Parts: sequence; C-alpha cells; structure tokens
Amino acid sequence: MSAIADLSAAELEALRNEVRGKYEAFRARGLKLDMTRGKPAPEQLDLSNGMLALPGNADHFTESGEDARNYGGLQGLAEARALFLPVLGAPPDRIVVGNNSSLALMHDCIVWALLKGVPGSPRPWAKEQEIAFICPSPGYDRHFAICEEYGVRMLPAPMTGQGPDMDVVEALASDPAVKGMWCVPKYSNPTGEIYSDQTVRRLASMRAGAPDFRLFWDNAYAVHHLTERRHEILNILEECERAGNPDRAFVFASTSKITLAGAGVAFFASSAANVRWLLARAGKRTIGPDKLNQLRHVRFLRDEAGLYRHMDAHRALIAPKFAAVAEALDRHLARTGVARWTRPDGGYFISVDAAQGTAKRVVELAKEAGLALTPAGATWPHGQDPHDSTLRLAPTFPSLEEVRAASEGIALCILLAAIDKQCALREAAGGA
Amino acid sequence: MSAIADLSAAELEALRNEVRGKYEAFRARGLKLDMTRGKPAPEQLDLSNGMLALPGNADHFTESGEDARNYGGLQGLAEARALFLPVLGAPPDRIVVGNNSSLALMHDCIVWALLKGVPGSPRPWAKEQEIAFICPSPGYDRHFAICEEYGVRMLPAPMTGQGPDMDVVEALASDPAVKGMWCVPKYSNPTGEIYSDQTVRRLASMRAGAPDFRLFWDNAYAVHHLTERRHEILNILEECERAGNPDRAFVFASTSKITLAGAGVAFFASSAANVRWLLARAGKRTIGPDKLNQLRHVRFLRDEAGLYRHMDAHRALIAPKFAAVAEALDRHLARTGVARWTRPDGGYFISVDAAQGTAKRVVELAKEAGLALTPAGATWPHGQDPHDSTLRLAPTFPSLEEVRAASEGIALCILLAAIDKQCALREAAGGA
Repeated sequence: MSAIADLSAAELEALRNEVRGKYEAFRARGLKLDMTRGKPAPEQLDLSNGMLALPGNADHFTESGEDARNYGGLQGLAEARALFLPVLGAPPDRIVVGNNSSLALMHDCIVWALLKGVPGSPRPWAKEQEIAFICPSPGYDRHFAICEEYGVRMLPAPMTGQGPDMDVVEALASDPAVKGMWCVPKYSNPTGEIYSDQTVRRLASMRAGAPDFRLFWDNAYAVHHLTERRHEILNILEECERAGNPDRAFVFASTSKITLAGAGVAFFASSAANVRWLLARAGKRTIGPDKLNQLRHVRFLRDEAGLYRHMDAHRALIAPKFAAVAEALDRHLARTGVARWTRPDGGYFISVDAAQGTAKRVVELAKEAGLALTPAGATWPHGQDPHDSTLRLAPTFPSLEEVRAASEGIALCILLAAIDKQCALREAAGGA
Repeated sequence: MSAIADLSAAELEALRNEVRGKYEAFRARGLKLDMTRGKPAPEQLDLSNGMLALPGNADHFTESGEDARNYGGLQGLAEARALFLPVLGAPPDRIVVGNNSSLALMHDCIVWALLKGVPGSPRPWAKEQEIAFICPSPGYDRHFAICEEYGVRMLPAPMTGQGPDMDVVEALASDPAVKGMWCVPKYSNPTGEIYSDQTVRRLASMRAGAPDFRLFWDNAYAVHHLTERRHEILNILEECERAGNPDRAFVFASTSKITLAGAGVAFFASSAANVRWLLARAGKRTIGPDKLNQLRHVRFLRDEAGLYRHMDAHRALIAPKFAAVAEALDRHLARTGVARWTRPDGGYFISVDAAQGTAKRVVELAKEAGLALTPAGATWPHGQDPHDSTLRLAPTFPSLEEVRAASEGIALCILLAAIDKQCALREAAGGA
C-alpha cells in the first residue's frame, strides 16, 4: 500500500470503499472487546494463586520475630524491603512498604506536600500562590488526575523516545512555581520508552527553581519486560545524590502487575530525610500496613531469582498479545503514512499516533464496532490531546484471540478515520 | 482503709512507709510489663488463624462474579458491606470498605475536607481562617494527633459517663469555626462510657454554626462487649436524618480488634451525598482496596451470628484481664479517696482518675518498677491533661498473669503518688 496522501482522488475513493467494507464486516461480527485498561489477564493472576492460601495457619512471624498479625511496623517488614531492593535501588532502611496501591502513596505524598511541605519546603505547597508539575505527555492519566484534583497546573513536555525532551524540562523546571514532575522512567506509560542515561542524569542534576522540587519517579514497570532483554536504567537516587540533590526523587513501585493487581504491596524509596518525612506523616494516618500481605509476598516470591522467574512467566503470556497488535497494525497500516506506533520492550501499553485530528473519531468508530478503547486524550493533561492523535492500546487483559480480533478492528478504524480525514481535507482544499 | 485525707500526720507517715515498702518490694521483682496500647493479645489473634490460609487457591470470585484478585471495586465487596451492615447502621450502598485502618479513613476525610471541602462546604477547610474540632476528653490520642498534625484547634469537652457534656458541646458547636467533633460513642476510649440516647439525639439535632459540621463517629468498639449484655446505641445516621441533618455524621469502624489488628478491613458509612463525595476523592487515590482481604473476612466470619460468636471468644479471653485490674484497684484503693476508675462493659481500656497532679508521677514510678504505662496526658489534646490525673490502662495484650502483676504495681504507684502529694500539700500548708 502507498501513503494515502500520495493517492489520486480515484485511488483514495476506491481505498475508502474497500476499508469501509472491511470495517462494516468487522462491525457485523458483533464483538464485545475491551482494550481500555492495563489490567493483568486472569491467566496472569493465576500465576500467583499460590499466594491465596499464604501465609498459612501457623506462619505469621517475621524474621525479626514480630507477630505480623498485630499492629505496628509502619515501615514494612525488613524482609519485604530486602526482597525488592533490586527494584527500588535503595538500602532497606530507605524503603517503605505500603498497602496495595503505589498510586495511593503518590497521592499521599502530594497531599502531605500541599498541607505540610516536604523537606526543604519554605512553606506547605498549598500556601504557594500557584504550583505546577511537569507532565511528560502522553503519560499516565491517573497521575494527571491527581494534579487536576488538587489544582496543580500541568505543564506538558514532549517525549523523545529516550524520555522527555530535556531542553523543555530544564526550561520549565527553572520556574520556582514548578514543584514536581511525573516520570515513568522504564517502559513508560503509554509510550513504552526507556529514559536514557543522559535523561536520568539531566533530571538528577538540572537546576530547579523550587528548593523543594521533587521527581515523582513511578517505576511501575521496573521488571515488566516483554523481551529477553532486561533493560536497566540508571539509579535515580544515586544520580541525585551524586549531583548534590539527594532529596530530589521520590521512587515508587508496586507488585500490582507482579502478583495480584488488587492485592499487591506498594513501595516508596528515597533519601533518609524523605523517608523520615514520609514515616512521620504516615504515622498520623495509620498504625501500620498489612504486614501479612507482605509476608505472603516474601513467602511466595522468595528472592530476586524467584521474582525474575515469575516475571518470565508473565512475559510468556503477554508478549504474544503485544506481537498480535503489532502484526495487525503492520499488516494494515505499514507504508500508509497514517500512523506510527510503539514496539515496547516492556510495560503494559502500545501507543499509537494516529493521523492528526482522528483519535477521537477512531475511538468512536471502534465503539460502534463493539471495541472499547481508552478515551482519546486520556493520556494528556486534562484529557486534552493537542493533536487529537494519541491512542493507548492495552492488550494484556483480553485473551490472545480477542486481542487478534480487536487489533484487526483497531487498525481498520485508524485507517478509515485517516482516509475520511484525507478526503475531507481534499474537499476543503478543493472548495477553497 | 480510710481516705488518706482524713489520716493524722502520724497515720499518713506510717501508711507512706508501708506503701513505699510494698512498692520497693514490687520494684525488686524486676518485672518487664507493658500496659501502654490497646493491642489484642496473641491468643486473641489466634482466634482468627483460620483466615491465614483463606481465601484458598481456587476461591477468588465474589458473589457478583468479580475476580477479587484484579483491580477495581472501589466501594468494596457487596458481601463485605452486607456482613457489617448491623455494625454500621447503613444500607450496603452507603457503606465503603477500605484497607486495614479506619484511622486512615478518618485521616483521609480530614485531609480531603481541608483541600476540597465536604458536601455543603462554602470552601475547603484549609481556606478558612482557622478551624476547630470538639474533642471529648479524655479521648483517643490518635484522633487528637491528626488535629495537631493539620493545625486544627482542639476544644476539649468533659465526659459525663453518658458521653460528652452536651451543654458544653452545643455551646462550642455554635461557632462557625467548629467544623467537626470526634466521638467514640460506644465503650469510649478511654472512659468506656456509652453515649446515651439523649446524647446521640442532641448531637444529631444541635445547631451547628458551620454548615459543613461533621461528627467523626468512630464506632471502634461496636461489638466489643466485656459482659453478656450487648449494649446498643442509637443509630446516628438515622438520628441525623430525622433531625434534618442527613450529612452530619461520618461513621467509621474496623475489624482490627475483631479479626487481625494489622490485617483487618475498615469501614465508612454515611449519607448518599457523603459516600459519593468519599468515593470521588478515593478514586483519585487508588483503583480499589484489597478485595481478597475482604473475601477472607466474609469467608471466615460468614454472617452476623458468626461475628457475635467470634466476639464472645474474645470476651472470654479479655474479660478476666479487666476483672484482674478492677480487683487490684479495689483491693488497694477502695475508700482511700485517691482515685476513681471505670468498670467498662466493653472496649479496650480502663481509665483511672488518680489524685490531681499525680498522673505523671504515677507513670514515672511505674516505669522505675518496670511497668510501661501510656504517657500521662496522652488522652488529652496536645498531651496536656489540665488536672494531671487521667491514666489509661490497656489490659488486653499482656497475659492474665502479667495483668495481675501489673495491676498490683499500678495500684501501689497510684497510692504512693497520692500519699506523697498529700504529704507535700500538708508540708506546704504547715510551712505557710
């Protein structure tokens, strides 16, 4: 197929009819498919079924002899902190284990920053006239939703394939109103890109206008590889320390997409001062996290090797789904010039840049054909994609067969919307 | 024994020597006892060991067919909400089930009220010049710590044995700066008292100066009876509705002292508007609570009858400990006039009013004898007991034998401190 922009009017019209026919045939199948959210499939959750009877009736003591059933242990079990040390890149005394949601830890850090300030804050963030966060975009909608909820202005920064555009980020960060930045540094949501060493070093060392600037380093996909290559990124905590900004990064992670999505454990890692700050705040909120669930994780995953074996089993289940999406997009869209898409080495998403001004239309067409996609714009601050172009595909939850069918439909919707747009543009140009 | 105030100088001196001798003998035993916190004993936790292997490898579907392992279900499982309906006094659609800490739910409600306001708020509470909470005192130190953390002024109101002094409460509540009030309505922490019907009705119907005034109704000990009598209190949500203040009460409870202290589930119940508000806020913080732990609770407790049977087993373990404290206090302090103490029908504490100006000294004397007590003043806002008189005893965690030994020591410390104080007062009077 040629790029549709190069087609003659007659060729374009013929292609439009052909693609519309295929789309209608797809629609006539009356499918019901959901590619909206990055949820693990039941088969992935089955990998952790061994946890469901843990820790067992007579196994509730920690290595230090604590009774994990009772109150206390605000920082989390030492053995759970040790187990995830390789993921978090901080010694156990600078790791905190929370309940089942790293999003909750991020939320609480923002709320506490607003009401109390963080180490180095001249005053609580809520007492500033206005505050802003740098938001690499497209990004994670739930990060942006927290900013929206609390009136934090969002400053988009474009992604480059190596992380955010650091020239833009550095310029934005020099403003004292800019208090933080969202980062998903590995297999980024949704673009799948990996922050390069240079990106990480520049983030660690750049001048920040605010003395209490924080990187919200959401390493959600630290061990979530889709290929045999286990990509590594630089250790942000070490880089910040080296650059003389030891308190700059709040690191977050969770086992939601390792063990059980609804019943994992979440982690916070940072400098000693930030950890003290977090524990002082958290100690007003709770007497301690669910330590039995931490014990369950330690008993089940055992050690770093166990963690990697477990992630390999996830990969075996979901890599074929990513491949199925790529295959359908390749087959229908290669050389049409209507879209670009990512081929991530990890994470949970494929990001498609559809023809400008067509993403909403693609989601509509898909919906009419029984295919639920993430709303167009969802990956941009306030849900506003300036180019109406980004689509986020989440292939993990449906079965492989469903992913194949859905990918077929998605490719057709992307192509049809682009052709319709091309026709409309030509009509407008012709009419002008 | 006579009231020590009535003793002659010689009698008092003789008694002082006798009690000091007993105290020294107690100290010489070199015990190590801890009566500081309301923690369940290991034997109480053992009652729930059946949960530690639940839900089991192949049981992770909810009644509605949801996979409890995956993301979602922000409001909590319908069956968990139904199970605790009798405790919460609201229909299941007005109950929210959270993770392992009701304190966390209370904290989050305050934080969200500060940053966003509650239904009916003219503006977020943090935008008010100053806000205050009514704090029935003595009360729960962790409630007061939240106020302290966020700069909420605390207005103590005395307890009457039927709940807080409502004349005082009504006068305080008329101030528009007063946004809320802490209540532990049944087996109150630490006094053990039960709010009378009249107290509950007046709280529900009193005029509040703030249009968004909220009762933080921490029904922590709803089913935690120490006698065969299962005391009931009026349903605050119904009373508020009846009085035309349907959004006034936030009801909290948890299973921390029902199943496992560190791994229970927490509840919020309120009006439809308040529940919508809470879920809208919580939805920015997390994708959902740990539903497997909710399933674990449902599978283990089964139904209301199961819950009551389980609480009866707790009672069998801890009622003798409360009786041991009462016995020792009676034996050493009856008719001395130096102290009054509670004989609660439920809850986790015995509250002692020691001689004015001696509580700190009692805690010191106890410490010197190897007995850890809750710091004097801890049950008052900012840790400041105006009379330096309240002592909170927590007899559940130590063994019965330890409680017996500790109670002996505590009684001696209370008596010795009172005698020393009496001597000092007489000396001062004599010297003047």
